[in-house]
Amino acid sequence: MASVEIVTIGTEILLGHLVDTNAAFIARHLADAGIDVFAKHSVGDNADRLAAMLAGALDRADGVVTTGGLGPTVDDLTKDAVGRAVDRRLVLHEPSLRAIEKRFAAMGRTMTANNTRQAILPEGSVVLENPHGTAPGFVALRADDKFVASMPGVPREMKPMLTERLIPWLTQRFDVRSAIYTRTLHTVGIGESELDRRIEDLFRTLENPKLAMLAHNGRVDIKIMAKAPDAAAADATIAPLAAEIRARIGSGYFGDDETTLESAIVGELLRRGLTIGTAESCTGGAVADALVGVPGVSQTFRGAIVAYANDVKTGLLGVPETTLAAVGAVSEETALAMAQGARARLGVDIALSTTGIAGPDGGTPDKPVGLVWFGYAGPDGASEAVKLTFPGTRADIRTRATTAALSLIWRRLERSNTAVGVQS
Amino acid sequence: MASVEIVTIGTEILLGHLVDTNAAFIARHLADAGIDVFAKHSVGDNADRLAAMLAGALDRADGVVTTGGLGPTVDDLTKDAVGRAVDRRLVLHEPSLRAIEKRFAAMGRTMTANNTRQAILPEGSVVLENPHGTAPGFVALRADDKFVASMPGVPREMKPMLTERLIPWLTQRFDVRSAIYTRTLHTVGIGESELDRRIEDLFRTLENPKLAMLAHNGRVDIKIMAKAPDAAAADATIAPLAAEIRARIGSGYFGDDETTLESAIVGELLRRGLTIGTAESCTGGAVADALVGVPGVSQTFRGAIVAYANDVKTGLLGVPETTLAAVGAVSEETALAMAQGARARLGVDIALSTTGIAGPDGGTPDKPVGLVWFGYAGPDGASEAVKLTFPGTRADIRTRATTAALSLIWRRLERSNTAVGVQS
Repeated sequence: MASVEIVTIGTEILLGHLVDTNAAFIARHLADAGIDVFAKHSVGDNADRLAAMLAGALDRADGVVTTGGLGPTVDDLTKDAVGRAVDRRLVLHEPSLRAIEKRFAAMGRTMTANNTRQAILPEGSVVLENPHGTAPGFVALRADDKFVASMPGVPREMKPMLTERLIPWLTQRFDVRSAIYTRTLHTVGIGESELDRRIEDLFRTLENPKLAMLAHNGRVDIKIMAKAPDAAAADATIAPLAAEIRARIGSGYFGDDETTLESAIVGELLRRGLTIGTAESCTGGAVADALVGVPGVSQTFRGAIVAYANDVKTGLLGVPETTLAAVGAVSEETALAMAQGARARLGVDIALSTTGIAGPDGGTPDKPVGLVWFGYAGPDGASEAVKLTFPGTRADIRTRATTAALSLIWRRLERSNTAVGVQS
Repeated sequence: MASVEIVTIGTEILLGHLVDTNAAFIARHLADAGIDVFAKHSVGDNADRLAAMLAGALDRADGVVTTGGLGPTVDDLTKDAVGRAVDRRLVLHEPSLRAIEKRFAAMGRTMTANNTRQAILPEGSVVLENPHGTAPGFVALRADDKFVASMPGVPREMKPMLTERLIPWLTQRFDVRSAIYTRTLHTVGIGESELDRRIEDLFRTLENPKLAMLAHNGRVDIKIMAKAPDAAAADATIAPLAAEIRARIGSGYFGDDETTLESAIVGELLRRGLTIGTAESCTGGAVADALVGVPGVSQTFRGAIVAYANDVKTGLLGVPETTLAAVGAVSEETALAMAQGARARLGVDIALSTTGIAGPDGGTPDKPVGLVWFGYAGPDGASEAVKLTFPGTRADIRTRATTAALSLIWRRLERSNTAVGVQS
């Protein structure tokens, strides 16, 4: 099995001023392609330290994948260090120079000496073309066949270079015959420990495919990982296991892989020809914003009323002043009146409301910071109110409340599916 | 100067299934405390590779700071590897065992053997107490005085342990006499190259303090970094430079450090006793959501109307049907009518509207994907419409439009400040 280490280059990333998302992307794609990732490293813009890091990594692994330090102003750094690590001198690569010249001509811009330097590469390198920028990537080869592959740090340039150029080169060179294929099942509204109870025998016994569980902000993902020679073989082992797990999860499962809770909701609403809107207080429009993030939402989402002040709840949503006076804005009655008001005034089939105390101030012994009421109003007079209390900061509470609101919409859609015997 | 390398431990982080935010946090705080960070590394749950990594790092630097691998189920991994790297056996640390027992008693829970193992540490370690969890951190010392400091991976436990325990220990041990103090000036609405033009002489000539510029999503930050023996001395060098830069930036500067564009807006609205609301189409409530994220916003933000469907624009915002028919929803006239409608119906002093084409579909040659109109309606009949076009995906366009909407509010507040001669 081929093994690599990953090195990201740049002082801004080393010192945490920029978050490094490249290294995680590279690691995940290499691992999924069946290549063993030993370690990730990050170094500053320092050629000596980088050269030492590369030398150490080449002792441990078959090769190193680097990102960063190929831009027009700092291009010498990475190439100088790579040249030293693989013991190759730097030479001008004519085809890359032609490609850079062509790119500048197409843009009608003048090349600088710095741009020319981007075509200088370690001798004998395999070039990784860069259709999205000027700096080509390359794989520099040491005499003992160990390699350093270098890509730019700009994610838009690096990502396609990795998946379309470098990984195909690596899998061919190392004759990788099996890759890791994954499917992620998304759930909401079921606790991590409850999910664990339902599938822990599978966790314990399975080797290939195997399972992992990841919890974040009220959602839990179950990841199925299968090692297989190709996608069809992987699917043959993943599909029956996914079906078994879905059956054990029951309600709360909302989709696979790229599906988000909001895209699942929008898909289900579109399938059933239902429209939706929200009435939000503590979430401040975040539930509407999540739905509007889904392409094609205009066929189902009509609008939202963010009623933060009490008289906006009264004036635009029709919450009775007597209700607000008697039980307050954060109450079952207000949540229901907000949902019903939004349903009528936005002219939608389904309306969802939120009203709560996000903090840091405004809590009382009866109604502490973190308390949120959710209201639902649907077709045929169906309605429901749910009370939840969330821990954490104002931002935590608002994020969790937004997920809980979406979860309530999803659960109602699922339940009405069952009620009318629709199978998804 | 003391030098360290940072190691994060965990297969989920190595393979990119979890984003590593710890390493950046540790690097930034160590660098700011005057400690030289040579490199960051990430390894999986593998004691041999971890031990090799630690040994290599101790060759290069004075010490290593690790995070992760101290939980109740995997605690042997990190400690085993650290013990080998510093050549110390593992022993039970009685005070730590007492602390864990006390914590469990307070929670009314039963300790397991795994919890007891969390009190086993490399012999002679300096213990870093953990008020937020069971696993203590520790600094293990090698005979040659090099060290490995290990902290849990849970950010809530690691962060205070780093800033309150480990960094004070490090600065005392290495007699660090100067630290890096930073101040970040935030700007919006000025391009990176224009900002660069205005302050590039300072960039070129300054050594201490020195400058860095970071652009993200339409905002540009200017970071001033000063090396100084204490905060007062740092302020004496930073304050005049910050004043000089602010004078050169002029309008577009909105605050320092933890100030966000939305918190600056809310602060200014509160100071002037003005209320605000929004009318949103393509941003779907994201502008309102940003404002509601600011604590104390209830004194100024009253609500928002998210009018995605055209007849909601008409029914709830009073946009004339004839306007929509004549010039369409994405137009100067609609943006202004939305803002004026929101101002009246929400009963606010200032209303801001957005209407645009977020894509991926719906673009035309005249109104391409990315086109967004913004409307402003303020006191005394003041109004303004602004047209911008953003590149990228639906998510990119919506994020940029949200920032641009906030930027327009800020610019109007600044302008009216100048007009009435108010100094901030």
